[in-house]
Amino acid sequence: MEIDYSKIKVIGFDADDTLWVNETYFRDTEEQYANLLEGYETKNKIDQELFKKEMDNLELYGYGIKGFMLSMIESALELSNNQVSQATIRDILNLGKGMIAHPVELLDGVHEVLKVLSKKYRLIVLTKGDLLDQERKLEKSSLSEYFHHVEVLSDKKEENYKNLLEHLEINVNEFLMIGNSLKSDVLPIINIGAHAVHVPFHTTWQHELVTIEGKEDDYLKINSLREVLNYLD
Amino acid sequence: MEIDYSKIKVIGFDADDTLWVNETYFRDTEEQYANLLEGYETKNKIDQELFKKEMDNLELYGYGIKGFMLSMIESALELSNNQVSQATIRDILNLGKGMIAHPVELLDGVHEVLKVLSKKYRLIVLTKGDLLDQERKLEKSSLSEYFHHVEVLSDKKEENYKNLLEHLEINVNEFLMIGNSLKSDVLPIINIGAHAVHVPFHTTWQHELVTIEGKEDDYLKINSLREVLNYLD
Repeated sequence: MEIDYSKIKVIGFDADDTLWVNETYFRDTEEQYANLLEGYETKNKIDQELFKKEMDNLELYGYGIKGFMLSMIESALELSNNQVSQATIRDILNLGKGMIAHPVELLDGVHEVLKVLSKKYRLIVLTKGDLLDQERKLEKSSLSEYFHHVEVLSDKKEENYKNLLEHLEINVNEFLMIGNSLKSDVLPIINIGAHAVHVPFHTTWQHELVTIEGKEDDYLKINSLREVLNYLD
Repeated sequence: MEIDYSKIKVIGFDADDTLWVNETYFRDTEEQYANLLEGYETKNKIDQELFKKEMDNLELYGYGIKGFMLSMIESALELSNNQVSQATIRDILNLGKGMIAHPVELLDGVHEVLKVLSKKYRLIVLTKGDLLDQERKLEKSSLSEYFHHVEVLSDKKEENYKNLLEHLEINVNEFLMIGNSLKSDVLPIINIGAHAVHVPFHTTWQHELVTIEGKEDDYLKINSLREVLNYLD
């Protein structure tokens, strides 16, 4: 089903890796984490074990840096057989604190696109993860002025989107979501009958990878955020 | 200023230690944490250092169990001079996981009061802390049906309340907040011109303690939630 752009009234933006860089910092931290533990396992095994630990803890911790920090510590203890040094655990805590305090790095074209679209559409931010962390990033980003509403969700499944659109009194056919994750920003959106634009980021977390078959016509794929202005203006 | 109960249309409920037990689990965990570290410092010193660490990290981590876990680990490393054993760090992780997975224990009278009030008023939950954690507790509590809206705030300051009431289109003089914390549920509320009921819980986190002078007439203090039905019904 092709998108009828003339019907769109509200545009939802994902934040991490759509408005600003995020996944890159996780990859960098994983790299440093593997270096800290290189005496115990291969880099590959360290990566794998950490990802497994994150998945095991996801239901308990949810998304965000604090849960990632706790999983890094737990995985380090396990794969070193409790041999990892206390100093290394402190280093891991500091890696995580550095991530939380990291400056916000906007992606190319974000200001320009939001400035244009905010004149014609109601813009909202729909992100998942840690509430405080996402509020802080939005504040640091100086993008708040463009948005009517910011919602931090504990997850981005069909049910979360349905409840939110209902709560904000937005019709599904008037809603367009823009984001970098097929799994979180595109699939659940087209499944509830709303519209989606996929803007891939060069790095995607393993947990967010999905394959889509036969649904390629149901959403728009663009290479950079600026291209969205060819469809909406 | 006395509260004109006939004007109230919307009632906000704090959740932790107002609808269900919370602070007690933190005290229990702190007790077990002090036992784990008793070789390094006195119980009193361990408590003090942990609280100091939580306050140092509050801006970075915000409220909630995951930040508490990270502060426990950091404080254990510091006060043991990096001597705390790896097994103890695992124990600390498990203490925190136990808190997150703890069953929800409703306070006396909660179901009855919500059942009565939900027939006449619009009820909302206003809580701070970790988004996933609070959503999960509400789900476990079976209280969701009574509430029109649930909002997890990153903090409960005047500004947070003002923005929320504006967003939900609630007039301050038609809003009543019920909660156990003078600092978070009462003072900011009466300062913005809305109304508040204070229901103390037997245990209060040091960070939430405030002294109030000259404002005792501006809010209602009751000893148990059921008493609120003497004023609102």
